[in-house]
Amino acid sequence: MSASADQPPARPHRLLVRRSGIDTGDEPVIFMNSRCHVCRAEGLRAHKRVLVSVDGREIVATAHHVEGALVAPDEAALSEAAWRRLAPEPGQAVTVVHPPTLPSLGKVRGKIFGNRLDRAAMRAIIGDVVAGRYSDVHSAAFLSACAARPLDPDEVEALTDAMVAAGERLTWEAPMIADKHCVGGLPGNRTTPIVVAIVAAHGVPIPKTSSRAITSPAGTADVMEVLAPVDLSLAQIRRVVAQEQGCLAWGGAVRLSPADDLLIRIERALDIDGPGQLVASVLSKKIAAGATHVVLDLPIGPTAKIRSDADAAELVRLFEDVAARFGLAVRPVLTDGRQPVGRGIGPALEARDVLAVLQGAPGAPADLRERAVTLAGAILEFVGAVPENGGRAAAASALADGRAWAKFQRICEAQGGMRTPPEAAQSYEVEAPAVGVVASVDNRKLARVAKLAGAPAAAAAGVSLLVRIGEEVAAGQPLFTVHAQTRGELDYARAYLDGAGDIISCEPLR
Amino acid sequence: MSASADQPPARPHRLLVRRSGIDTGDEPVIFMNSRCHVCRAEGLRAHKRVLVSVDGREIVATAHHVEGALVAPDEAALSEAAWRRLAPEPGQAVTVVHPPTLPSLGKVRGKIFGNRLDRAAMRAIIGDVVAGRYSDVHSAAFLSACAARPLDPDEVEALTDAMVAAGERLTWEAPMIADKHCVGGLPGNRTTPIVVAIVAAHGVPIPKTSSRAITSPAGTADVMEVLAPVDLSLAQIRRVVAQEQGCLAWGGAVRLSPADDLLIRIERALDIDGPGQLVASVLSKKIAAGATHVVLDLPIGPTAKIRSDADAAELVRLFEDVAARFGLAVRPVLTDGRQPVGRGIGPALEARDVLAVLQGAPGAPADLRERAVTLAGAILEFVGAVPENGGRAAAASALADGRAWAKFQRICEAQGGMRTPPEAAQSYEVEAPAVGVVASVDNRKLARVAKLAGAPAAAAAGVSLLVRIGEEVAAGQPLFTVHAQTRGELDYARAYLDGAGDIISCEPLR
Repeated sequence: MSASADQPPARPHRLLVRRSGIDTGDEPVIFMNSRCHVCRAEGLRAHKRVLVSVDGREIVATAHHVEGALVAPDEAALSEAAWRRLAPEPGQAVTVVHPPTLPSLGKVRGKIFGNRLDRAAMRAIIGDVVAGRYSDVHSAAFLSACAARPLDPDEVEALTDAMVAAGERLTWEAPMIADKHCVGGLPGNRTTPIVVAIVAAHGVPIPKTSSRAITSPAGTADVMEVLAPVDLSLAQIRRVVAQEQGCLAWGGAVRLSPADDLLIRIERALDIDGPGQLVASVLSKKIAAGATHVVLDLPIGPTAKIRSDADAAELVRLFEDVAARFGLAVRPVLTDGRQPVGRGIGPALEARDVLAVLQGAPGAPADLRERAVTLAGAILEFVGAVPENGGRAAAASALADGRAWAKFQRICEAQGGMRTPPEAAQSYEVEAPAVGVVASVDNRKLARVAKLAGAPAAAAAGVSLLVRIGEEVAAGQPLFTVHAQTRGELDYARAYLDGAGDIISCEPLR
Repeated sequence: MSASADQPPARPHRLLVRRSGIDTGDEPVIFMNSRCHVCRAEGLRAHKRVLVSVDGREIVATAHHVEGALVAPDEAALSEAAWRRLAPEPGQAVTVVHPPTLPSLGKVRGKIFGNRLDRAAMRAIIGDVVAGRYSDVHSAAFLSACAARPLDPDEVEALTDAMVAAGERLTWEAPMIADKHCVGGLPGNRTTPIVVAIVAAHGVPIPKTSSRAITSPAGTADVMEVLAPVDLSLAQIRRVVAQEQGCLAWGGAVRLSPADDLLIRIERALDIDGPGQLVASVLSKKIAAGATHVVLDLPIGPTAKIRSDADAAELVRLFEDVAARFGLAVRPVLTDGRQPVGRGIGPALEARDVLAVLQGAPGAPADLRERAVTLAGAILEFVGAVPENGGRAAAASALADGRAWAKFQRICEAQGGMRTPPEAAQSYEVEAPAVGVVASVDNRKLARVAKLAGAPAAAAAGVSLLVRIGEEVAAGQPLFTVHAQTRGELDYARAYLDGAGDIISCEPLR
């Protein structure tokens, strides 16, 4: 086919850009007057996606039309995310045109209808996500499709590869680089800061990058942030690890897997986190961080993310299969996921548990200490730093003699200085209605209470769990405390508690 | 469990409401100053969902924070959709609090992971969609899950029931009410206005409500709107049908299936439309419109929505199965879906084809006329208005003697007056590169060109197809013309054409 009316395409129209001050979250938005000449010339309609460019940089944004004087007809106002990504000078002329079509969306549709996604398709999808070309609706469809049509090992490999390719990558001189990851679903299971301190105290390099919460009330990065800066650059991570063997950084700041950071926000809104997505998310970050040996903490329990030994075995198979394709060794550690670990659920509350264990404080949560010792011991054995079966003793002694606590403080100092966890302004106690024995704890509902109370965004918010399974309680004895920064959030959590049924079930004494 | 600190929940805080003039599409948005006392007291963070209420009316909106003077700290500015739905007085005090949790989202997650959705779950989901409690991300997950984990007949029944229950319903005195529906995927297949005119001219009641385009360049409502008002109320539909036996209204205006109208927008962004969703969408509207006999037009072709006879048979089974559960009779008519019907693709271009057939104009598209006669004949036989095998002749004679054209004009007048279709300002011709015979037409790519050129939002935009399969063409002979309202849209469609490969394939002459 050839063109008959061969006029050159019209020169794209321009608008003077300014910052709107409107925070629309991660999705970039451009506000334009509905009578603006670009809207008319380009036929841009409200709620469409547009390509905005200046000085060779470009973003895809959602166009919102404005009636009235808020935005002049020759102006374009950018949301905060759009302003950050495009980084124009105020008053600079930006070009606004129709965005390119997105062939990778055809791959997402194909996946919805049962096609498999190969490496090229995954790279195209993840590339478009990272470039900001997907709207939230597109990302939601991709994630839902990958959960509903579970990814096979080849697809998980392809997704892992695409996620690594889309980001930065750390490399190290040392032949063995340790790492750990907890699959999650267990509130308060904050072993990472303790494990890193113990392992680094043994001289084993462990450049730990962690994520913020996905569907939980706190991620390790959220907890560490109340103790020290976690927003480290790649150069800072290299320096801290060279000096202290370990670090506890937020992975998102160094774009080790930027696609994951963007998708996590949608996963959180949907509260979904399928196995394929999970494995690719974990492994892409470990590969990008340069790890060679990864210990996986897999808590199993009726209300944990992994509900049975069979589910754990399946997940371990997928982890080991895909990890091997990237030359990564993984060692699974199955742990008890029937109830939360430690007392605190929420960034500051969990940070205080971590400090108590590291400091050997009287009343430090024994279960958290125990689990950190198990995991740190497994790492020390896995990399050959201590003989098999010698890991637990080596880990416990680093805690007992203060080497781990000293190491943790040095890591915090190296990251920019240690901080004191904040305390919440509001609290509310839930008491046992009658005498009895604690029979079970609903992790999911407890996590939901902590989230409704404001965690993780409100660092001091969350829940303190005051009893354990098997413990006798008296009538009126406090079972847990809800903490919130604001009265509105406390009320929100209380309103949920009123209709949530038993979160901690007690059986009568025999 | 009982509460120890039994303070009453804090009184919700209030803000003075105003209209922002910002059109954010269908998703309601509230803009609040980041320093506003409600945000601080409630702990409301940017990009969260909030419940806004006034005078007993309430909406769930996405909260965007604003820095600076755009919104005062004691103010809340509403997007256009939020303003329409909440309908406050300017300056009235609105209450902004955390939204209730959405238990139906748990059902969506269950569906993603393979659970079935029963009637109660579907009613809960659809109820939340219609009440505006779902964000676009939630709706996208629901639709993707229903496409990726195909709905079984019980689930389609449950979804149909929920969609009918969420909207208005028409009832009629007549024992038989005819209706028709084309499953779509075939550009330009605009038989409905012709069929309604023929059937109504035979005195058979056919209160036709149609939707706007989902993934196509024009829906019947988009086409009819260039010929007459389609925004009829229930009372207007009853009056037009009482007077003329038929009408051609937009279903969305009368909320016959308001959930469908909301979900269509997300389906369009994702370009997905699975079989279960399709059957529930069609049947819910027919049931709500009070139809008893529905003829289904099922175009089959390699680039139509239905690709093979086997796919058609499966879809027909699902239609018949679910329709029977609601006491609805359906008759399938399998049609040729290898190429578009008529010449025009896009609202105004298709409307001109419809007028040409009704007026018996020389050069009126014979294929469109033929198909309308087939479908109208099938309806006349199905309801027993003419003997079996007498339908085609009866339908053809109503066209030939002008009864259908007269009826169509009276229907348009009864709906508010006939209109003249607009013409596009810009056009671009695509020519045959060499002499040959037209071998195939890619419906999907042709539809995409029409959409990129601005259809259906720009009524005059679209494509005129100038050749048919089997026709001989000379080198340089125009194959199709692209029409657009603006230069930007024409360029956008041209840019796609440059990389799209052959849309009309020709074979050398033998």
